[in-house]
Amino acid sequence: MQDTSCIYLDYNATTPIFPQVAQRMQPFLTQHFGNPSSSHAYGRPCKQAVDTARQQVARMLGASEDQWMLLFTSCGTESDNWAIYGSVMAARAAKGAAFVPHVVTSNIEHPAVLECLTTLAAQGLLTYTAISVSNEGLVSPDDVAKALTPATVLVTVMHSNNEVGSIQPIAAISEVAHRHGALMHTDAAQSIGKVAVNVEELGADLVTVVGHKFGAPKGIAALAVRKGIPFHRFLHGGGQEQGMRGGTENVLLAVGLGAAAELVAVEGPQTGAHLAAMRDKLQAGLCAAFHQADVRINGPVNHAQRLPNTLSISIRGLQAAQLLTDLGDWLAASAGSACHGTQGPTASPVLQALGLPPEFAAGTLRLSTGRHTTADDVHSAVQLVIQGAQQQGCRVRIRA
Amino acid sequence: MQDTSCIYLDYNATTPIFPQVAQRMQPFLTQHFGNPSSSHAYGRPCKQAVDTARQQVARMLGASEDQWMLLFTSCGTESDNWAIYGSVMAARAAKGAAFVPHVVTSNIEHPAVLECLTTLAAQGLLTYTAISVSNEGLVSPDDVAKALTPATVLVTVMHSNNEVGSIQPIAAISEVAHRHGALMHTDAAQSIGKVAVNVEELGADLVTVVGHKFGAPKGIAALAVRKGIPFHRFLHGGGQEQGMRGGTENVLLAVGLGAAAELVAVEGPQTGAHLAAMRDKLQAGLCAAFHQADVRINGPVNHAQRLPNTLSISIRGLQAAQLLTDLGDWLAASAGSACHGTQGPTASPVLQALGLPPEFAAGTLRLSTGRHTTADDVHSAVQLVIQGAQQQGCRVRIRA
Repeated sequence: MQDTSCIYLDYNATTPIFPQVAQRMQPFLTQHFGNPSSSHAYGRPCKQAVDTARQQVARMLGASEDQWMLLFTSCGTESDNWAIYGSVMAARAAKGAAFVPHVVTSNIEHPAVLECLTTLAAQGLLTYTAISVSNEGLVSPDDVAKALTPATVLVTVMHSNNEVGSIQPIAAISEVAHRHGALMHTDAAQSIGKVAVNVEELGADLVTVVGHKFGAPKGIAALAVRKGIPFHRFLHGGGQEQGMRGGTENVLLAVGLGAAAELVAVEGPQTGAHLAAMRDKLQAGLCAAFHQADVRINGPVNHAQRLPNTLSISIRGLQAAQLLTDLGDWLAASAGSACHGTQGPTASPVLQALGLPPEFAAGTLRLSTGRHTTADDVHSAVQLVIQGAQQQGCRVRIRA
Repeated sequence: MQDTSCIYLDYNATTPIFPQVAQRMQPFLTQHFGNPSSSHAYGRPCKQAVDTARQQVARMLGASEDQWMLLFTSCGTESDNWAIYGSVMAARAAKGAAFVPHVVTSNIEHPAVLECLTTLAAQGLLTYTAISVSNEGLVSPDDVAKALTPATVLVTVMHSNNEVGSIQPIAAISEVAHRHGALMHTDAAQSIGKVAVNVEELGADLVTVVGHKFGAPKGIAALAVRKGIPFHRFLHGGGQEQGMRGGTENVLLAVGLGAAAELVAVEGPQTGAHLAAMRDKLQAGLCAAFHQADVRINGPVNHAQRLPNTLSISIRGLQAAQLLTDLGDWLAASAGSACHGTQGPTASPVLQALGLPPEFAAGTLRLSTGRHTTADDVHSAVQLVIQGAQQQGCRVRIRA
């Protein structure tokens, strides 16, 4: 699966297609090809495969068929955009086009939420409030409650953050939203396959699922929609996806999403433990290498509030983006800052929202472990980062 | 590729993933998996693959990089919806939200166009006029000109029709649209891989490309957008697709779309000739079997105005939907009517628009040939249809 000698610690960016998933997809690449809408011998196995995949994803989420619609989409961005658009347009249809719905969100959401809100706000279709997270990257349900207005129809808060791994108190936020009569959406892209995600325990009405974060291919995602909520379709066409999203079904990738969901349902807890073991080893190795005052771990202190696979670590004096460029053939990870022109590195909006001190911002690495990460990978990665930091002139306690 | 003994004459519904295409996709199923946005060793080959695919599709369409954006989408429905939404929202942004743009279309468009227009009209975002086609399924450029209003910002007419294969005079319609200052969109889903589709010869501004109609997998499509036209993005997210469509790129399927486009560019004319030869043989075989007065070929009489692979044939007295149900394990094709409850079969909206006499509507079969159709397939299909028709008590000239 690994196609270079480069150590992969960027599972939050995307995962490999897991081998068991690729194997299930194979017959749909080379053999079965019918249109699921066709009732003949070519269509039937494909319809069956899409139905099975839908059930596998629903089962993983604890979404019973009588309470939930499980709708396939093309990516997390589409799911998030749809959650917002579908709620807002339904509210406008109910209350008249003069009604401008209000949405509450946080200031560390993915661009699929924040860019969508900004754009629809500029078009006059909604207004929104993005509440600030704590310096650990956590949303307070009380702050959500304070941000509600009489026009609030939707609260959208991600289940966990892609950069710092903070896991939000979604069940508590759902309660706040529902007491107010608003819908609750959560983007669970980064959580599935790492921690348990059960739609009923979360109490949400809309849940985004993104395949390529847990072993399915890029290009397939889902939106779980609680039946009976006021919600509009997104793509208008031939009546696929229970009339909610037109477009011939993406059979090949749906099979992959289903297979990956089944793996999560079967392996969940043991995978979570493996991710945490690898991440903790990585964190320990790096923390030991630098002076305590030079290192900062971003995100929640409480382990239960942080994704088991995510390490956002800031090292004073390090130029993280440069380090990753230099190590591009040896270590795959992400930096928490990007260079824009001559201004020097700028911290990501998420790190800015957490109030990361400037002397740490440029030195932020996001390392994310996965199902196929080994202790050897972690050991080598620690050595590579220490070496790179030394070469940049950072102070180290343990030389590589 | 064929996974049953069933003869496949339903290429307009979907095609197999062509073997050469599956072969190119294989390494992206089992080996390369990086996020194209990542600059490390895993991301780079995936970015390269997406870039190459984009160039392959652009080359097939004659869309030069300095004049065109080639944007990947998830399906033809998304491309069509986007063409409409993007044009209309750009016009509203330019002229103020009080401006209600007008769109001209035909009455035989795909639901991805007609349903979208109906929905956006109900939301007060646009008005539209659907002009009637001739009894051969052709749109008259003069009728388009007559339907224009001062508010018309877009004309959208499909390149060819999925049911009867009529090929529209898009270049002439584009001229009418442009003289008026409106944009021109055409859905070329059914044409690519069958007849030449060159965006500059068509003079269109927006062209829909659908992979699973020419050997790529279901779940990937494209929208070619002429640079500089007033046009808005659709999915709001992380800046992918030149900032026009957020969402992690669907690497695996984009590779498939690129490979299929390359095949079209290389094999185009010879494939077209093969499709026509098979279709003509099919048409001749069926016409010979029934009395002339009992058979009707739908769509343009002039061969140059009809897709080379499409045969929409109506046989008086035949229950086509029942025939295809009975033959479901032996012959894969489509019927031109569907049964709704106790009302008996209803002709499809397209056949109704062509004014098909009621005594033929229920007996309409759509048979569509493809790259892998053989003379044996055609011979057997003719025999099967004749047998089935006989069993239903239809008059035949030649017994099977």
